[in-house]
Amino acid sequence: MQDKQDQAPTVDGISRRRLLGTAGAVGAGGLVLGAAGGAAGYAAAGPDAPAALSTLGSTQVAWGGEHQPGILQPLQARGHLIAFDLAPGAGRKEAAALLRRWSATAERLMKGEVSDGATAIALDAGPSSLTVTFGFGHSFFSRTGLEKQRPDALDPLPPFSSDRLDRKRSDGDLWIQIGADDALVAFDALRALQKDAGDAARVRWQMNGFNRSPGATAHPMTARNLMGQVDGTNNPKPAESDFDRRIFVPASGEPAWMAGGSYAVVRRIRMLLDDWEKLSVDAQEKVIGRRKSDGAPLTGGTETTEPDLDKVGADGKAVIPADAHARISRPDQNGGAAMLRRPFSYHDGIAADGTPDAGLLFVCWQADPLRGFTAVQRKLDRGDALSSFIRHESSGLFAVPGGPGKGEYVGQRLLEG
Amino acid sequence: MQDKQDQAPTVDGISRRRLLGTAGAVGAGGLVLGAAGGAAGYAAAGPDAPAALSTLGSTQVAWGGEHQPGILQPLQARGHLIAFDLAPGAGRKEAAALLRRWSATAERLMKGEVSDGATAIALDAGPSSLTVTFGFGHSFFSRTGLEKQRPDALDPLPPFSSDRLDRKRSDGDLWIQIGADDALVAFDALRALQKDAGDAARVRWQMNGFNRSPGATAHPMTARNLMGQVDGTNNPKPAESDFDRRIFVPASGEPAWMAGGSYAVVRRIRMLLDDWEKLSVDAQEKVIGRRKSDGAPLTGGTETTEPDLDKVGADGKAVIPADAHARISRPDQNGGAAMLRRPFSYHDGIAADGTPDAGLLFVCWQADPLRGFTAVQRKLDRGDALSSFIRHESSGLFAVPGGPGKGEYVGQRLLEG
Repeated sequence: MQDKQDQAPTVDGISRRRLLGTAGAVGAGGLVLGAAGGAAGYAAAGPDAPAALSTLGSTQVAWGGEHQPGILQPLQARGHLIAFDLAPGAGRKEAAALLRRWSATAERLMKGEVSDGATAIALDAGPSSLTVTFGFGHSFFSRTGLEKQRPDALDPLPPFSSDRLDRKRSDGDLWIQIGADDALVAFDALRALQKDAGDAARVRWQMNGFNRSPGATAHPMTARNLMGQVDGTNNPKPAESDFDRRIFVPASGEPAWMAGGSYAVVRRIRMLLDDWEKLSVDAQEKVIGRRKSDGAPLTGGTETTEPDLDKVGADGKAVIPADAHARISRPDQNGGAAMLRRPFSYHDGIAADGTPDAGLLFVCWQADPLRGFTAVQRKLDRGDALSSFIRHESSGLFAVPGGPGKGEYVGQRLLEG
Repeated sequence: MQDKQDQAPTVDGISRRRLLGTAGAVGAGGLVLGAAGGAAGYAAAGPDAPAALSTLGSTQVAWGGEHQPGILQPLQARGHLIAFDLAPGAGRKEAAALLRRWSATAERLMKGEVSDGATAIALDAGPSSLTVTFGFGHSFFSRTGLEKQRPDALDPLPPFSSDRLDRKRSDGDLWIQIGADDALVAFDALRALQKDAGDAARVRWQMNGFNRSPGATAHPMTARNLMGQVDGTNNPKPAESDFDRRIFVPASGEPAWMAGGSYAVVRRIRMLLDDWEKLSVDAQEKVIGRRKSDGAPLTGGTETTEPDLDKVGADGKAVIPADAHARISRPDQNGGAAMLRRPFSYHDGIAADGTPDAGLLFVCWQADPLRGFTAVQRKLDRGDALSSFIRHESSGLFAVPGGPGKGEYVGQRLLEG
């Protein structure tokens, strides 16, 4: 016990970076896995030599390439979402300089070169799967005189009857998603990027989220949300032939600066947990259409078994009710619409009404929000049994360009195109 | 990539518990470390057999014994603090029944038997170092007719000039500290304990905190706070001869129901990070008296080197300034006062004034708050250079009884004494 406090050898930034240098080459998925037994390089360094970072600490996500990071990587334990508006007087030039600063910071931090100045917080950390992802909101284009470059896909989402949106916590000229498996690494990145904003942009809103810690469960299982439900089972899989087409703007797509990019829909979805927890497990499972224990459809099998939507129970009713969330949100019930959901949970304590201010920072990715989020949400808005237990409280839609090329910054093709 | 979502074998509660059963005996420090290669018991179970929980997931903290859990264990990645007031009409009898329910829930959850009913959230998780700790506030004793059992040590803390306390987020009849290395395990415990409260008690305030993830740093180093400073270096160590005397009420102590117990001071300490980050690293280090990089005193060495408080620099000034936090808070400058600090960081987004609502959920443990927290805070209140960069926003003081004996619930010696 107390071992975190009793041992305290020195780490210096150089040693740490050297250690990270042993991590190896970037894998196909953009993950640089920590070298097993990464301390080997320190065999002769004596008792004060840094121990190896665990895989959690040493895992590094590649910057640049076809797509931005933070879309295809596994969910991280900690996340920050932050939106900025350009400051009065700031335009295209200031925005370009800002994106250049932000890109440089993101690339540096994702390598594990944590801030080493006044904002430094996580000095002794590995990159801990840090990802930083940048997007542009609808209002960005008019403020920078780039209306002609604005994609139609950024047209405002339609209103939904269940929306209770707080506009102050919605939208924004610029959006950043930060994820990491260590809370201080994520916070360090948040503060460094806020500092970079300088006089060019002001924070519009900021939210914090989390997911399971790697290793907390026996399985690298689909995530659970704060209702305790397995969440994300029907996510499209990169191995599927139409995955890229559904999630990413093709290299030949329009506008050209969005090649390899994707559109992120961000919704703060409050869960009415006091109401939800009054239901029996049986009633909860009927709302979702899946078993709470393992996410299997109520018609049997395991999480990945196809549900039998036509199956009727002894009571003459559909085993998976007509308004079950899993039935209504199925891609094959929605003209093949698909979005890659990659959310964080959130919990901001107790709300003014005494209920938990908790739920899902829903983030989904698609090549076309009209065929992705909007198509599915229209269905859910009409008849989803889950809608009595959730409340959409904020909304954002952002154009997230492809990954930057070598020496490029994110959005350069837009801002200097 | 996407490996969290592509693999999804079934877990059932029984298998999970069986797996946890391989974890082994309780160690001296109350930690049950996960068995390395814990999957051995599943060697013949086929491809769908659960993989081993990692050490993070399988680590179990013992319930019961001399002290309550959550005092001597390493800091966890996630924490919840919650205070309750007894409901109008509820007295000693209802409080006893509540503590019995709470103790049963805590014992069950700390074994990894997560909630399996309507509030179940973390069904597939290991215990993930979950600890649940219960305390009694000053107001508890009058509401239950137990004034004569109220320890003098619960007398209200004196006001400090730097206090900006929100009384609605201070104090409380009952207090629970929850810590775990997985956010869903911690949240599951929070919700289960809230549900247990039923009609007997109402939430007064609730706060969320976090620390580094195990493995994010190369060292099991002293924690860092959100100012980026190494924090906790001078914590008393269990190996020190006077540790028990300073931190815990002795078996023969008064009142008898507090034998083996400790007093927790809880302060929500906002960090004025926008101001702090405007300082140079050099100026930050002078405020603290230690190097930011590794926590070593400004007079040299490593984190654990004794500072040379008399050393004068080339400029004729003390190398560790007279108002440096590390100088003023030293136990040997405070009549040997000692407290075991075991905090969480917090970050609740952006405050109304646009600055980060972030800082430290300071929790410290001592046998005598007057000789521990109060003595040190009086000194800091007068002349600590750090006080310009922090603001104490809430305060609580709780009597935390010793660990329950077999079949006992926490506080039974008070409530049935």
